[in-house]
Amino acid sequence: MKPPVAVVVLAAGAGTRMKSTLPKVLHRVAGWPMVRHVLENVARLKPSRVVGVIAPGATDVAAAFGAYPTVVQRKPLGTGDATEAALGALEGHDGPVLVVYADAPLVTAATLQRLVAACRREKAAVGVLGFTARDPGPYGRLIVRAGELERIVESKDADEIERKIDFCNSGVMCLDGRLIASLLGAIGNDNAKGEYYLTDAVAIARAAGHRATAVEGDEAEFLGVNSRAELAAAERALQQRLRSAALAAGVTMTDPDTVWLCADTRFSPDVTIGPNVRFGSGVTVASHVEIRSFCDIEGVRIGKGAIIGPFARIRPGSEVADDAHVGNFVELKATRLGRGAKANHLAYLGDSDIGAASNIGAGTITVNYDGYGKHRTVIGADAFIGSNSSLVAPVRVGKGANVTAGSVITEDVPADALAFGRARQVTKKGRAGPLRAKLKARAAAAKRAKRK
Amino acid sequence: MKPPVAVVVLAAGAGTRMKSTLPKVLHRVAGWPMVRHVLENVARLKPSRVVGVIAPGATDVAAAFGAYPTVVQRKPLGTGDATEAALGALEGHDGPVLVVYADAPLVTAATLQRLVAACRREKAAVGVLGFTARDPGPYGRLIVRAGELERIVESKDADEIERKIDFCNSGVMCLDGRLIASLLGAIGNDNAKGEYYLTDAVAIARAAGHRATAVEGDEAEFLGVNSRAELAAAERALQQRLRSAALAAGVTMTDPDTVWLCADTRFSPDVTIGPNVRFGSGVTVASHVEIRSFCDIEGVRIGKGAIIGPFARIRPGSEVADDAHVGNFVELKATRLGRGAKANHLAYLGDSDIGAASNIGAGTITVNYDGYGKHRTVIGADAFIGSNSSLVAPVRVGKGANVTAGSVITEDVPADALAFGRARQVTKKGRAGPLRAKLKARAAAAKRAKRK
Amino acid sequence: MKPPVAVVVLAAGAGTRMKSTLPKVLHRVAGWPMVRHVLENVARLKPSRVVGVIAPGATDVAAAFGAYPTVVQRKPLGTGDATEAALGALEGHDGPVLVVYADAPLVTAATLQRLVAACRREKAAVGVLGFTARDPGPYGRLIVRAGELERIVESKDADEIERKIDFCNSGVMCLDGRLIASLLGAIGNDNAKGEYYLTDAVAIARAAGHRATAVEGDEAEFLGVNSRAELAAAERALQQRLRSAALAAGVTMTDPDTVWLCADTRFSPDVTIGPNVRFGSGVTVASHVEIRSFCDIEGVRIGKGAIIGPFARIRPGSEVADDAHVGNFVELKATRLGRGAKANHLAYLGDSDIGAASNIGAGTITVNYDGYGKHRTVIGADAFIGSNSSLVAPVRVGKGANVTAGSVITEDVPADALAFGRARQVTKKGRAGPLRAKLKARAAAAKRAKRK
Repeated sequence: MKPPVAVVVLAAGAGTRMKSTLPKVLHRVAGWPMVRHVLENVARLKPSRVVGVIAPGATDVAAAFGAYPTVVQRKPLGTGDATEAALGALEGHDGPVLVVYADAPLVTAATLQRLVAACRREKAAVGVLGFTARDPGPYGRLIVRAGELERIVESKDADEIERKIDFCNSGVMCLDGRLIASLLGAIGNDNAKGEYYLTDAVAIARAAGHRATAVEGDEAEFLGVNSRAELAAAERALQQRLRSAALAAGVTMTDPDTVWLCADTRFSPDVTIGPNVRFGSGVTVASHVEIRSFCDIEGVRIGKGAIIGPFARIRPGSEVADDAHVGNFVELKATRLGRGAKANHLAYLGDSDIGAASNIGAGTITVNYDGYGKHRTVIGADAFIGSNSSLVAPVRVGKGANVTAGSVITEDVPADALAFGRARQVTKKGRAGPLRAKLKARAAAAKRAKRK
Repeated sequence: MKPPVAVVVLAAGAGTRMKSTLPKVLHRVAGWPMVRHVLENVARLKPSRVVGVIAPGATDVAAAFGAYPTVVQRKPLGTGDATEAALGALEGHDGPVLVVYADAPLVTAATLQRLVAACRREKAAVGVLGFTARDPGPYGRLIVRAGELERIVESKDADEIERKIDFCNSGVMCLDGRLIASLLGAIGNDNAKGEYYLTDAVAIARAAGHRATAVEGDEAEFLGVNSRAELAAAERALQQRLRSAALAAGVTMTDPDTVWLCADTRFSPDVTIGPNVRFGSGVTVASHVEIRSFCDIEGVRIGKGAIIGPFARIRPGSEVADDAHVGNFVELKATRLGRGAKANHLAYLGDSDIGAASNIGAGTITVNYDGYGKHRTVIGADAFIGSNSSLVAPVRVGKGANVTAGSVITEDVPADALAFGRARQVTKKGRAGPLRAKLKARAAAAKRAKRK
Repeated sequence: MKPPVAVVVLAAGAGTRMKSTLPKVLHRVAGWPMVRHVLENVARLKPSRVVGVIAPGATDVAAAFGAYPTVVQRKPLGTGDATEAALGALEGHDGPVLVVYADAPLVTAATLQRLVAACRREKAAVGVLGFTARDPGPYGRLIVRAGELERIVESKDADEIERKIDFCNSGVMCLDGRLIASLLGAIGNDNAKGEYYLTDAVAIARAAGHRATAVEGDEAEFLGVNSRAELAAAERALQQRLRSAALAAGVTMTDPDTVWLCADTRFSPDVTIGPNVRFGSGVTVASHVEIRSFCDIEGVRIGKGAIIGPFARIRPGSEVADDAHVGNFVELKATRLGRGAKANHLAYLGDSDIGAASNIGAGTITVNYDGYGKHRTVIGADAFIGSNSSLVAPVRVGKGANVTAGSVITEDVPADALAFGRARQVTKKGRAGPLRAKLKARAAAAKRAKRK
């Protein structure tokens, strides 16, 4: 059996151009911090180890690595130095070592796999992912001769012929685990910035009589994020991937460019999505669901045939069962809406459990918060909650019960009971005229007062 | 007088790549099923007959043809076979017969008209719509010599010279009604798939000494929809047409790319539309109307000078009279909002009729549904409905009446009356502190219980 | 010291292709009338005078010029005639005179400055802004020889060699204030339309032995707006500028193409904006603010760490203090939300002042309008307003007070008091069944009645 791969994820970059107090690799694309995209991708290679290299004090970045260990690069002395910081954590690993970047979330597992496979096949000490650049200007050029990678020339050091080469260095490398320590050890810092560059490993390996190889990937995968504009570009690229996958899976989107997906959004076929729908993390949508325009949906499992929106907002911890409806200006938070239940207009349902086929009237509010604690509202099946009702939690409304419109419900309503919590109407004939006169006079007086 | 045209609409395709239980031609673009776009377009040619060819059991597709007859193609044996299925319905027709596709909704009536006109002018037995393909790769090539269409060569059968031809076959054809039966009858199925191809009619006609002609159309018109991605592309193309027409008619759109129109949306000049507005079917907008951002509007006539949104949702059967306002988080359903009437904030108005210059307070709900039936709310002119009121329908509020805030109105309110349906305020001094203490203690106890 | 510049802003164009009753230059882009963009830009040149040239009767256009004087061009006789109309207002000015167009809002101050500087440096009688046109077709060509502008050839008068020139006339010119009267006086109208063209000033100046010069600008800056489609194009271009500037300043936008900014929107770093947010004028956003998707925000100062949306609407005259929350389906109008205060769900807060750390329950409405006047609601710090409450203004709720859910508050609530304004709940066991039977019967009867 081939020795497994290890992965070093460089995540120590400062990201000053982001103008942010948040570490760069924690900025989000498609709902996840960039570093998580990278970790999820490398996980597909089933690596034996993953090591993060982080900046001093970056505890939140370390946390983003989850169970994976991280090491600290003490000073920002270049990619060679950063990789060297991980050597201790690679002790005893003699398979390939992939070096990837936490701020380059678009590189796919398939491309990484191809690099590793090429290194194995060609028994290369070093492998580099390259790309054909539309505008090679600033990139290092990969000098390939007779199928082998000879060296990497920095743009500023390239001669006229080399500058015409458009096969460029992505920075992603794969080093032989048995050689990595000696290769890194040989990298010097005799350059303008006094930094240690990982790319030097190619020339060092060649000089030592080892093989080096270059594998081509798509330029689009190698977008590194150094500014908010590049962050937006990465977001766009990831969204296009996610949208194409959803369309291919049988999802109709009126305007795919206005559907924002999360990396973990899951669809069954025959889902229809109108313009302008945002998915946060943790959404699963069953078949024949219709999500209308202007929805913001997060953390919910939506059952078959349900209708959501327009203008619906669903927050985490929710479940919308088959054939249920969530209509306009309705918010669900940590709420289960039973099979065929409907909340079609202007409602806030929080920390609640709504029984099957129940009808929640317009303007209904579950009063789940008292200023200190959150409480649950439980409504049985086939219940009818009248419009503009307030259900003061903790409270239970039984199966088949009816709460009349405009009621404030503070006590449990038994099954099949009818509950009122409102005043009787009193109508005073002919009294609107005098009231109008009074209000008009008041308004006029206020205007006069303002003028003074 | 020239004999009129007949149209065969092929609508029997399976559409497996759509991954849908809905027949392909019923998928919607610009608010209409694709087949409806095709039918509306061919109707402009004033055809003497329109015949749909559908798959066995496709009753919902047949229904989409409305009054037009449909015939069933028993097995999917190619376009020639599908067209032949329509012959019975064309009995006695001796004018041109257009063959069009229900999954190609972008072909315009003008382009079809040009094909028919060319066939008449050139007395052609067969006419074909072609296009100059940006990437001719997979398309059949139209071999035109001395102004006549000689034959159609399938891409895979083309020789090197023919492959360089970029004038390609759209599939849309026009056949002489007096010859169609014999032409179709001569088509064989001696090919890899064992299907009957309508395109063979060209060579057959030429071999029998008839003329054939090709007319060029714009490639963009011939997009056929076979996947959800192509459906989205067709939607985009139709939206661009509709948006351009609206701009030319004097509509301002801050960002036309985020206005989704329906094929039947109608505007007068000097309408202003903010970003992110979706129009469903049946909307007519008079001049000087302002539709602000984030609106979802369907089935309504909007009068001069009205202001809609932001965040307004209007559902079918509604009418918004001149100078009326529909504000944020307001839903109208089957409701008439009178001249100058205002519902500016957070309201649900369903099955209701609001008189001119009436003011509907924030949070007002017409309680139109009792769980079984829908009921109407009728409000006279110059009425004032206080905020957070519930109007339990069926109910009438008279002209000039005033409903106080927070009232539940269950009985009719006469004109100029003042109606209360709320409790009197009771204020208990110094009691918020002890309540806070109690709620805090409850929250702390709940937390402790959770920890256990 | 150099004599200062004067600016003539041509704003008399008819704009018939706009199909609008609103004068063309008052149509808005990025929240401002086009003419305002032009005025703000030229103001950066610190001109000694700015003169608007308007059409007869265009009082609203004159008003848009604010303190700047305007003169009337009596008849639409061309740009030369329009500029001549301004001569009176330039009396005594002997510095450069810039002539710009009120319907070309994309020309930057920097580009204008370069033109003025070139004219000064080269002591040119006339300077012209040109651009390299992607499609020079209809534009006048700038004939430059030995670094001097020789003449401008109209497209239709150009010979074959001249037509190949792609350096084109933008129309923006700078004339020497000491010569402008004589140059304009020499322009004739011996042409097809009988109009006086400002471009003729170049040839006239040269013939009189003066120098002329051309300065190149970016084609994108010279988009003139003559139709709603061009208005949308100008909007798009301005939005791209504003978005790029915001990204560079440290603002994250998930999808910058769906964030619509106003020319005066101001951001601190580390602001996060979700998809689909519209900014009206007068918005300032402090650092670490999160604005979620689907918001419409105008006239508000948003403090550090505040969270807005999704689905929030903020109207002018508002202030959201540090760490405050404005949640979904919440409208703020002329309201100050104190530090750490929360209005998270379905609420209308108008003309109100909410104290720090107060909690506004879902469905709360400030009843600020009585049909004639607007009134204020003042809520102290640490108050708790229960859900579905109506606060009938003018009204004050004291510090630490608690308004119970579903209450209508018509009288002031003292600090630390507890206020009820709702009915007690009455529960009738077993009565929902008979009610259901009655409602079912009523619905069935209604159906029968309809059928008849």
